[in-house]
Amino acid sequence: MNKSELAKLHKKYKENLLQSVVPFWEKYSPDMESGGYFTCLDRDGTVFDTDKFIWMQGREVWTFSRLYSWASGESLERRNHWLELAAHGARFLREHGQAPQGDWYFALDRSGQPLVEPYNIFSDYFVAAGLAEYHRASGEIWALDLALSTFNRIQDRKAKPKGIWTKQIGVNRPLLAMGIPMMDAWMARELRGLVEPGTLDALAAAAETQVMQLHVDRERKTVFERVLPDGGHLDCMDGRLLNPGHALEVLWFLLRQAAERNDKLRIDEIAGIMLWSASSGWDSQHGGFFYYRDFKGYPTEKLESDMKLWWVHAEALCAFLLAYKLTGNPEHLAWFEKIDAYIFDHFPDRKYGEWYGYLDRQGNVALSLKGGKWKGFFHIPRALMQCVDWLHEMEEADVG
Amino acid sequence: MNKSELAKLHKKYKENLLQSVVPFWEKYSPDMESGGYFTCLDRDGTVFDTDKFIWMQGREVWTFSRLYSWASGESLERRNHWLELAAHGARFLREHGQAPQGDWYFALDRSGQPLVEPYNIFSDYFVAAGLAEYHRASGEIWALDLALSTFNRIQDRKAKPKGIWTKQIGVNRPLLAMGIPMMDAWMARELRGLVEPGTLDALAAAAETQVMQLHVDRERKTVFERVLPDGGHLDCMDGRLLNPGHALEVLWFLLRQAAERNDKLRIDEIAGIMLWSASSGWDSQHGGFFYYRDFKGYPTEKLESDMKLWWVHAEALCAFLLAYKLTGNPEHLAWFEKIDAYIFDHFPDRKYGEWYGYLDRQGNVALSLKGGKWKGFFHIPRALMQCVDWLHEMEEADVG
Repeated sequence: MNKSELAKLHKKYKENLLQSVVPFWEKYSPDMESGGYFTCLDRDGTVFDTDKFIWMQGREVWTFSRLYSWASGESLERRNHWLELAAHGARFLREHGQAPQGDWYFALDRSGQPLVEPYNIFSDYFVAAGLAEYHRASGEIWALDLALSTFNRIQDRKAKPKGIWTKQIGVNRPLLAMGIPMMDAWMARELRGLVEPGTLDALAAAAETQVMQLHVDRERKTVFERVLPDGGHLDCMDGRLLNPGHALEVLWFLLRQAAERNDKLRIDEIAGIMLWSASSGWDSQHGGFFYYRDFKGYPTEKLESDMKLWWVHAEALCAFLLAYKLTGNPEHLAWFEKIDAYIFDHFPDRKYGEWYGYLDRQGNVALSLKGGKWKGFFHIPRALMQCVDWLHEMEEADVG
Repeated sequence: MNKSELAKLHKKYKENLLQSVVPFWEKYSPDMESGGYFTCLDRDGTVFDTDKFIWMQGREVWTFSRLYSWASGESLERRNHWLELAAHGARFLREHGQAPQGDWYFALDRSGQPLVEPYNIFSDYFVAAGLAEYHRASGEIWALDLALSTFNRIQDRKAKPKGIWTKQIGVNRPLLAMGIPMMDAWMARELRGLVEPGTLDALAAAAETQVMQLHVDRERKTVFERVLPDGGHLDCMDGRLLNPGHALEVLWFLLRQAAERNDKLRIDEIAGIMLWSASSGWDSQHGGFFYYRDFKGYPTEKLESDMKLWWVHAEALCAFLLAYKLTGNPEHLAWFEKIDAYIFDHFPDRKYGEWYGYLDRQGNVALSLKGGKWKGFFHIPRALMQCVDWLHEMEEADVG
């Protein structure tokens, strides 16, 4: 891409972020009566459920805090409002989010009464990252303390993440899932400067090893969502499951990790793996990435397999922009442009702002919601801020 | 319907059952090496996963046993084969299905090693019904004993059906779901003659009361999937959830119950409720019943809400045929004919037999499978046997 193309994209993403996505959440999400955020928002911002899902709360604290730190060029008034909104969610988490043992509930009602037990360790990951980022933005020490104690609990719980709520009998089907190393790679980056570097380096290295040695199968040119501890594959639904969005998300985390240590070999390797993952996950008939696939082409057990989801495409956009930035390879540029076109043709809502989340296979809007139990204020702003930063660096470096 | 229309339908259903549905499962489902049944069968019968899901095993034992007892006009050779296949599944359940405390695992691997803990009480319901029906067909006393001990355990567990695996904090959100009364109404009928009548009458009456007093909302003309213990509604995703297939399934169980005690008022009441349920669940744009809806028209949290599922339509077919048989109301006949037309235009696979399970909103096949983790050998043969019986009774009575 030449300088003017870079500048044009840069402008498009920044506008989408600051004029469409952020205003939607600023306006409709804060619950000014009971604290925290509403995340179940229909197309026009109507709140259709007032429950507070902890991982959505943690993610939104992260996003408002990061926005504050990121958008230093924005008017002070606007940035300060974002910091206030971050504080609004952080305080709600502090007051209501934790179960007695210190783990984070999965869901609360509007007022903060717990509705679902702390069975899901990903709630804790997002709270830790959110409060760490809020600490960076605000300087609040309590937020740092709570982020660190949560980080430490995650390390203790990770071996059996669902604790007493575990239904799988792992001894008879010891599959490892990609969720934990993916989140570890992200956390190692997010807690940099707040946790002792040796701990974070070890976490990042273990995540990279698990993904690159076990989940990535070079012979089959496939990234498997679940693998045996020796890297073997089980020929069953779980063992054959592919999740193209997850694969591209973890790959860009690892690509960034490799770039930071200037590991040229690993950069080229990961960039190559991205190409297989994208090819096998793309719907050549209707465009867009599938949500799930089966390695052998059988049906998956997920009824929503064929749908096109916002986060999958946001992560794919990051993956290919970073890969192109680092390698200059035109194949990565071509994928980036294809994903960018699919996104801007399908996801943003020109009328009410934000992106739709769930399209059917043909690309029609399947659910009108802008936020829900699983979609919040996170993947889109994270991707857009990240891409704007990279595009800016590319303009400076005059790549292309 | 006149006699020749009844005879034509009777023939169509019997042919679909005995020439398309049953042969598919007879041929591809039995695991002659390790016992029990494969239920993950792709379009042409290819086994794509060998795990044994206990409720699918229990349902298939029920179906082969019932077929044996039902099809007395079929050649003895064929019926005996069905009894053998029922025994094949019943023995596998006896040998591998129970956890030490007597509850039934959710899933086993091919050889019978447990994979998922006994967290799901519906496994136990289907095993109890399956073994009871197998006892009726075979006379085996061990199957009766195991059916009865399972039935008794269900009564003890029902108040907290997920036991130690419960994640919902019920005290803060005390919603009642329709699954338990629906299954109780079915069980009360299935165990007739094997369990003391007073126990079964009480079970049936309690189920009818919960559904008719709490889930059915006469003012809003809606059957809610989840309600407060006082019949009130919560204005949240869970409280507004509609499941048209579940509503029609429980309604025909209760309609049959009312017919058996000759309760004309209740029959008319239920038949009326069916009309609202069907109207609000039908997709007037593309035909077929939606899987889920929200009472206020908001998005649901279920990504698969718009899909058209085999079991929903099989249950709806039973509901309206029975309602028409009992009331003679042309509105019920019109619904029955519309559902019959939708089914036979969309679900049966003329090439490989059986029905597709999962269509997209437009009615295209979304997943090619004939059986999986959630679809087995149950709803379709149950509905077809039931409809054939009713049509036969209607021909005899010369209704219409």
